Amino acid sequence: MSPVDNTKPKAVVLVSGGLDSTTVLAMAHAEGFECYTLSFDYGQRHRAELVAAERVSSSYNDVVHKVVNLNLNSIGGSALTDESIAVPESPTEGIPITYVPARNTVFLSIALGWAEVLGANDIFIGVNAVDYSGYPDCRPEFIDAFESLANVATKVGVEGGRIRIRAPLSDLSKADIIRQGAALGVDYASTISCYQADSDGRACGLCDSCRLRKEGFNAAGVPDPTRYKL
Amino acid sequence: MSPVDNTKPKAVVLVSGGLDSTTVLAMAHAEGFECYTLSFDYGQRHRAELVAAERVSSSYNDVVHKVVNLNLNSIGGSALTDESIAVPESPTEGIPITYVPARNTVFLSIALGWAEVLGANDIFIGVNAVDYSGYPDCRPEFIDAFESLANVATKVGVEGGRIRIRAPLSDLSKADIIRQGAALGVDYASTISCYQADSDGRACGLCDSCRLRKEGFNAAGVPDPTRYKL
Repeated sequence: MSPVDNTKPKAVVLVSGGLDSTTVLAMAHAEGFECYTLSFDYGQRHRAELVAAERVSSSYNDVVHKVVNLNLNSIGGSALTDESIAVPESPTEGIPITYVPARNTVFLSIALGWAEVLGANDIFIGVNAVDYSGYPDCRPEFIDAFESLANVATKVGVEGGRIRIRAPLSDLSKADIIRQGAALGVDYASTISCYQADSDGRACGLCDSCRLRKEGFNAAGVPDPTRYKL
Repeated sequence: MSPVDNTKPKAVVLVSGGLDSTTVLAMAHAEGFECYTLSFDYGQRHRAELVAAERVSSSYNDVVHKVVNLNLNSIGGSALTDESIAVPESPTEGIPITYVPARNTVFLSIALGWAEVLGANDIFIGVNAVDYSGYPDCRPEFIDAFESLANVATKVGVEGGRIRIRAPLSDLSKADIIRQGAALGVDYASTISCYQADSDGRACGLCDSCRLRKEGFNAAGVPDPTRYKL
């Protein structure tokens, strides 16, 4: 990366290597933030994500990327971290089995710790309207509650500063997200959304995440650059 | 451990191997909870803590103990996780350098995830009045904010249940804590509070944590079983 520019405000951006968080990074960067991207090696099945998170971060010459190791698979409870639970290949009702208990709470907490160390007041996360019905920790009321917590939990909050949890995709459909990202020059071929991508980063085309992504490209009228296994 | 007793409510108890959290475990156990203790290998200097956390948990025949690995040292910013920052050996003003950014937020988040998997509605943490002045994430308003968050962040909260964050030491001095623990039969010789204990678990006797512990035993009129290096 280039030397740090001290005139820019800093932001921590949660980056999974998927379509949503890559778009959020492009938005934060375009807004003028010096971006510090954070990914987690949490025992997820779709490890190709981490490669994509690094690729997406290094596509900017002024972004610092960090991976924190965290063995969430030791607490189990999700198809994404527990090898004994299969990833569903058709839509399901209610909160899906791919929900990782308290995942966004954990991720935002660690982002908050890093933000304190860096002196960053803004934390970006790619939750969006499509996720609301399924995942409790993607809803706007969750983001608001976490922001309230952040401001009593930290030095900066206690000393009169203000931490902001920024969820710029909150009201956007998948198609809206893709349109905005494409306008900002995001190369979606670098991103991986599939819950069970192979080690080469090819998508299954069948899981919920693949399905939403495909429909998004169709609805946006943007060519889908995803490489599929099938 | 013994076979699980399904008639008891479950609780996740954050256990560091120190005096406070060991007392909290005794309280939760005495209250009738089936206790699941959680510790973190987060790159802390005082690794003897983890041995103590296991020893304290296994002193009950019905407690399940888990250690989650989490490399918080990669974000730095504290004398407890950054080897380049010295542990102070005399009292300091303001938020101490031993403060680990967002530590209790991170620990409670992971406890929340495990609680969801287990079906536990109670999470115990050993924050107390002595810590308030120094650590923002030990204050009652932090505990309240986390409880609010927990109930919008999780399946159980969304589905009408109630997660409770229990901080039974909140209003207690160190001497009160020791008196209550002693009454519940806690063996404080098993616990380690020192920020820089040696690999054999002997305490420095000089850091803030040692000083508070020593004064606590004195004030409680309970013999101090701590083994010191000096």
